[in-house]
Amino acid sequence: METQGKVITCRAAVAWGAGEALVMEDVKVDPPQRLEVRLRILFTSICHTDLSAWKGENEAQQAYPRILGHEAAGIVESVGEGVEDMKAGDHVLPIFTGECGDCRVCKRDGANLCERFRVDPMKKVMVGDGKTRFFTSKDNKPIYHFLNTSTFSEYTVVDSACVVKVDPRFPLEKMSLLSCGVSTVGAAWNVADIQPGSTVAIFGLGAVGLAVAEGARAKGASKIIGIDVNPNKFPLGREAGISEFINPKESDKTVHERVMEITEGGVEYSFECAGRIEALREAFLSTNSGVGVTVLLGVHASPQLLPIHPMELFQGRSITASVFGGLKPKTQLPLLFTQCLQGQLNLDLFISHQLPFSDINEAMQLLHQGKALRCLLRL
Amino acid sequence: METQGKVITCRAAVAWGAGEALVMEDVKVDPPQRLEVRLRILFTSICHTDLSAWKGENEAQQAYPRILGHEAAGIVESVGEGVEDMKAGDHVLPIFTGECGDCRVCKRDGANLCERFRVDPMKKVMVGDGKTRFFTSKDNKPIYHFLNTSTFSEYTVVDSACVVKVDPRFPLEKMSLLSCGVSTVGAAWNVADIQPGSTVAIFGLGAVGLAVAEGARAKGASKIIGIDVNPNKFPLGREAGISEFINPKESDKTVHERVMEITEGGVEYSFECAGRIEALREAFLSTNSGVGVTVLLGVHASPQLLPIHPMELFQGRSITASVFGGLKPKTQLPLLFTQCLQGQLNLDLFISHQLPFSDINEAMQLLHQGKALRCLLRL
Repeated sequence: METQGKVITCRAAVAWGAGEALVMEDVKVDPPQRLEVRLRILFTSICHTDLSAWKGENEAQQAYPRILGHEAAGIVESVGEGVEDMKAGDHVLPIFTGECGDCRVCKRDGANLCERFRVDPMKKVMVGDGKTRFFTSKDNKPIYHFLNTSTFSEYTVVDSACVVKVDPRFPLEKMSLLSCGVSTVGAAWNVADIQPGSTVAIFGLGAVGLAVAEGARAKGASKIIGIDVNPNKFPLGREAGISEFINPKESDKTVHERVMEITEGGVEYSFECAGRIEALREAFLSTNSGVGVTVLLGVHASPQLLPIHPMELFQGRSITASVFGGLKPKTQLPLLFTQCLQGQLNLDLFISHQLPFSDINEAMQLLHQGKALRCLLRL
Repeated sequence: METQGKVITCRAAVAWGAGEALVMEDVKVDPPQRLEVRLRILFTSICHTDLSAWKGENEAQQAYPRILGHEAAGIVESVGEGVEDMKAGDHVLPIFTGECGDCRVCKRDGANLCERFRVDPMKKVMVGDGKTRFFTSKDNKPIYHFLNTSTFSEYTVVDSACVVKVDPRFPLEKMSLLSCGVSTVGAAWNVADIQPGSTVAIFGLGAVGLAVAEGARAKGASKIIGIDVNPNKFPLGREAGISEFINPKESDKTVHERVMEITEGGVEYSFECAGRIEALREAFLSTNSGVGVTVLLGVHASPQLLPIHPMELFQGRSITASVFGGLKPKTQLPLLFTQCLQGQLNLDLFISHQLPFSDINEAMQLLHQGKALRCLLRL
């Protein structure tokens, strides 16, 4: 490639301060170093973790200027020394949590938080040399990275451990959704291992909750109960396979009492996708005492501890959490691509809006205001 | 049998009030009703749950007069209508948590809290008719049952779902230990599924902790760390396979810091067998972030909630609890008998004292004062 080994100047949406509108400007992107890859981003969408970082909700994680974004798809522009599993032109997804393949975690079945490249909201530079690959074009000021990916840019540099190849016959714009939000379908398939005929309760019907619903339906769940305080989310929920809806505001009974009525003794699986501590306890109590499994998927910003007594774990209910659907990105995500292609998962459902990259601030607002499920930006 | 269908009068140790010495007296034991079994108890030992009930620590669970005891072995005296898997003369263990074989839980792999006969500290009468099978010989006053078993009596009546047959070639007095405390070895084999070469930390070195240690050793754990504030427990711990000891009182560092030093990044498995909330958090933090599993085995009487933040479950550490080692009693306990016979588990280690049944109050004190691991009473 003509650009290989050279600095590329391209457009990026740069965050300069907490809650400030992103600035679309020219940035310089260094070539990839050893075991790194430089990508041409073609599609990116926005996830709540981007919003949260943009707002600067966690002060300790703030770093400016910074390029946010982590749900995306693109093409390899060039690879650094030592990268053997990818080459220029490959279709890929950058992934916010990596897989080195060599560490204690990567070598273990059922674990996916790679010791070297796991998701780390505090991380803002490359692992290799502790520096950034982004600089402002005006005065060469370093621009920080975000979640191993930084996809709000036409070009980005990521560790090859954080890149998954996609079969070029697969539609990249849809596959991009699997790089974060919709990958949580893995929580239904991999972490909870939902069995045919099972009952499921899903708390919070955003993209994560709907992905779980699709996953539960594909696994043959007999009853999928969706819980949300916003009934506007119910029609899309029905498309995703949810068969019963509960609006916690509409009854004096607790949600778990209503789930118990609907299911005669509680669901086998509940998923907390709302990031609310009250929802977490209701999700736990909604499961059957004896076989119930609760999976946490929502991000809990509150300092409040788990509202569960140790003895409650002896009642045949378990609770677990999952990052990236419990999937090892490089090893297990490709199976998900195929399953989507086979129609087990309807990705179209999740794309509520499409906009050009230049309208990224509008897209941020759509998600912030709860109007968008996923807004796909074309770069 | 001569006694079949008749009331049997025999000796039993009756609890008449919280913390009062048990009274050795004659009681009448009714014949077993439908799906029940009457047992001649030959050996019983005392577990901390008996002590706790004897002291009346939980007021809501108090019931007097009552026959305590649940860790025992005996012989079937007679069976009630409909019992087909046992007959008079069979060697058996009564088990505090049953297996009906028919319910949603019994039919599911990996779950063992039978919907009908699971352990229930509030239960004090038979399921079949809501009545007791014990009466005082003097004035026919009902005497309450305890934990589905009530083994501090020469004869007892239990639901057949709560009885497991033992091959008559196996030594009953040792097998009795598997009816409760030592069955927690199942937590190491079944719940945590310890892999060869793994590292393990055990908090609390009573019978439960030592059973886990024996189980971890049998599974080929490379390092087994025992934690207890009482160093007198260390020699026996070494016999059970513990390779390293930590006395939390002996350092300014936290236990998890010391475990991290010993294991370079934390153990794969930790077991909380102390029933202390601080130990629970240390056990959680002692595991490797990425693959760590913490199993709760201790009983937590304090109302304090789990000292874990929801986001900590996203760090590759999970926490679970186990009753009866996660084993289905009828289906899975027999395998444990065989493994003990094969020498995978050293049961002799757990019998620190042996006394005649008449000395039961002395045996209670030995356990209460921390002097006995298990005191085997011969009836």
